[in-house]
Amino acid sequence: MKLKAVILNCTLKKSPETSNTQAFIEHAEKEFNKLDVTTETIRVVDHNVAYGVSSDEGENDDWPDILKKIKAADLVVLATPIWRGDRSSVAKLVGERLDGIMTEGNDKNGQFPTYNKVAGVLVDGNEDGAKKAISSILFDFSEQGFSIPVNAFSYYVGEAGPGPSYIKAKGDKHEFTNNCMLLMVHNMVHLAKVLKGNPYATHVKQLEEQAKKMSK
Amino acid sequence: MKLKAVILNCTLKKSPETSNTQAFIEHAEKEFNKLDVTTETIRVVDHNVAYGVSSDEGENDDWPDILKKIKAADLVVLATPIWRGDRSSVAKLVGERLDGIMTEGNDKNGQFPTYNKVAGVLVDGNEDGAKKAISSILFDFSEQGFSIPVNAFSYYVGEAGPGPSYIKAKGDKHEFTNNCMLLMVHNMVHLAKVLKGNPYATHVKQLEEQAKKMSK
Amino acid sequence: MKLKAVILNCTLKKSPETSNTQAFIEHAEKEFNKLDVTTETIRVVDHNVAYGVSSDEGENDDWPDILKKIKAADLVVLATPIWRGDRSSVAKLVGERLDGIMTEGNDKNGQFPTYNKVAGVLVDGNEDGAKKAISSILFDFSEQGFSIPVNAFSYYVGEAGPGPSYIKAKGDKHEFTNNCMLLMVHNMVHLAKVLKGNPYATHVKQLEEQAKKMSK
Amino acid sequence: MKLKAVILNCTLKKSPETSNTQAFIEHAEKEFNKLDVTTETIRVVDHNVAYGVSSDEGENDDWPDILKKIKAADLVVLATPIWRGDRSSVAKLVGERLDGIMTEGNDKNGQFPTYNKVAGVLVDGNEDGAKKAISSILFDFSEQGFSIPVNAFSYYVGEAGPGPSYIKAKGDKHEFTNNCMLLMVHNMVHLAKVLKGNPYATHVKQLEEQAKKMSK
Repeated sequence: MKLKAVILNCTLKKSPETSNTQAFIEHAEKEFNKLDVTTETIRVVDHNVAYGVSSDEGENDDWPDILKKIKAADLVVLATPIWRGDRSSVAKLVGERLDGIMTEGNDKNGQFPTYNKVAGVLVDGNEDGAKKAISSILFDFSEQGFSIPVNAFSYYVGEAGPGPSYIKAKGDKHEFTNNCMLLMVHNMVHLAKVLKGNPYATHVKQLEEQAKKMSK
Repeated sequence: MKLKAVILNCTLKKSPETSNTQAFIEHAEKEFNKLDVTTETIRVVDHNVAYGVSSDEGENDDWPDILKKIKAADLVVLATPIWRGDRSSVAKLVGERLDGIMTEGNDKNGQFPTYNKVAGVLVDGNEDGAKKAISSILFDFSEQGFSIPVNAFSYYVGEAGPGPSYIKAKGDKHEFTNNCMLLMVHNMVHLAKVLKGNPYATHVKQLEEQAKKMSK
Repeated sequence: MKLKAVILNCTLKKSPETSNTQAFIEHAEKEFNKLDVTTETIRVVDHNVAYGVSSDEGENDDWPDILKKIKAADLVVLATPIWRGDRSSVAKLVGERLDGIMTEGNDKNGQFPTYNKVAGVLVDGNEDGAKKAISSILFDFSEQGFSIPVNAFSYYVGEAGPGPSYIKAKGDKHEFTNNCMLLMVHNMVHLAKVLKGNPYATHVKQLEEQAKKMSK
Repeated sequence: MKLKAVILNCTLKKSPETSNTQAFIEHAEKEFNKLDVTTETIRVVDHNVAYGVSSDEGENDDWPDILKKIKAADLVVLATPIWRGDRSSVAKLVGERLDGIMTEGNDKNGQFPTYNKVAGVLVDGNEDGAKKAISSILFDFSEQGFSIPVNAFSYYVGEAGPGPSYIKAKGDKHEFTNNCMLLMVHNMVHLAKVLKGNPYATHVKQLEEQAKKMSK
């Protein structure tokens, strides 16, 4: 069975404005496809995603549709531009909304719907902030049920100060960025396959009971 | 074959001073042992670890001995107290020294000696900073060749401002902290076993070549 | 002349939902008022603030009105809840929009409209992340033209894991939080008065010219 | 009276090894000197600074001598290289040791010896992490009694991945970096003079009492 990847583009710019993050994503998609992984990219700002920390914030909230796609995927990539040396507000919003999943433990063993999915991060900026953005996002993913492979990220940044972004800087020809991206794609796919064949045995509910007893 | 865990205690305090981080580690060790994982804890400040970013900084540097143990382990846990809302300087030092491993790719496929090892993080403080510390450390681990399972961390913090730390605050009776710790231990062990049976197929050297070609 | 403070409430919750951040703000407002500073709080999500990094993102963007109030203030406080151990997405959005000011240098010496204003930060959460949030926000403020006094922040957080937030936890009776808040208020007011009487002499345009020459 | 600046070089490399951070510092020192500020740079790793959070960690600890110089200065600059996308372990160590000052409130009004001093940050790296480093350091400085002027920092970083650092990259000819550095120097000197003439009136002890009463 083919693996499926969902990529969340967290640019601040609505379609059809040019998004450097989108260009970076498309470059990565090709590599996923070569490994027989289907990809779908969602440009978050093109949808009406409400502020909040639940899986459904009511009327006019497009998050439930996005979440459905995340749940159906084996691999999830969060792609964000850098603003102010950090992930975009849209990327933070996505992190907040994914908290909803933490109340959706299944009946069997209490695992969130994200257990056994694998996550990665793409970041593009014109100067500085990639590692801060990646760090925060990897933490979110780990708590929210995802597993993180070796080198689960790639990024492009240029020299200090204003300057060209991914497209103009020819980030798709930047060897370090490409190398990281290939590692991310190959390692994500490996780990996703391995977890598909060997899902977590962790009984979340039983550990909750055990924690209760330990804490008396 | 039994799995082995190495835990790095990054307290600022030399033995025999009381270390809250040590108490937290010992609590976690019991759970690793229950799952048939042997554990060894290294209190980094008791050794003479030099500043630097290579695997051996010369005379009087104790890092090579510590690194040997890390290389022999299946699971690695970095445990750090919080100071100034962030990981300790000793934890940062360890992160810097682990960079040396990134120049030690093997001859076969270029993977670092850490590929197929699994990492986790323990953090204790008296008020604030656990998630910042965890975020930075997870990023380091991912780049340095480790894989990160679901909920790869546990932490204890108390209320804003000065207050009791792990031991006096009875962190070992704090349900949330215990629950996170159990999840960390069980998920780390699951992922370590799975990767032992299914090591990364990623050919790091070939991807380097591919990146070079893509970037012309 | 009375000093004016504008406080930006970056809760995710629209009015009239209860906002812990709002309760914290109101507690701080009383202290500003005692020092003869008038205060106005803006609950950002009640307005339609567009994503972007300019001062005006076009039709239906309420940011220009908010920015007008910021420009008329002597002191600016950004107040944010913690989500995922970090500032809220709304607080990040505000940071991004304030970038617009960096293209609004005046004709005389090129200083942004924020030069000689003083900034502070209030953060409330139920467990962890205050210092990470404050750090990022102080950096933004410094680059965006604000000056930062001693102890330019206050925060409330509780013990690790889910728990009561500012209102239920009686954050307004938490001594450390109150102490920090009083320091913030008194130090902000001192610095604002001092800068009003002694505005920055820095000639931003001339330094730009000097930097150009130095860099040939 | 001449102002005095102390600059802490937090490189990992002992003298006489080449330090890019040192080159950056020397470039900034010239500008301080032009404004009639005397400068002294301390290369922290050349001294035996113990781990800890007090002002004196006992025998063989060189921190007390460094702290004496900090106390005698009007301006303090922390200069750090980037390792792992963050400040160096040495810079973190310095932040930890400065905590000692927070127990040294004076008898008169309880202000730390750092009140009325002004702080800034220099960061050099070869690709990414300057803003994360600056953010954490500015937070530390603000809590530890320093005031932070507009644009209290400068940094140099190059493109994503390994590459030349400050010296080889000719950071001293990088216009953005120079512009930031000039702003930092001029704004620090302005604020230091202004605070020398108008020291904080804040009565720290009285506010402590007030906080106690408010919190009953």
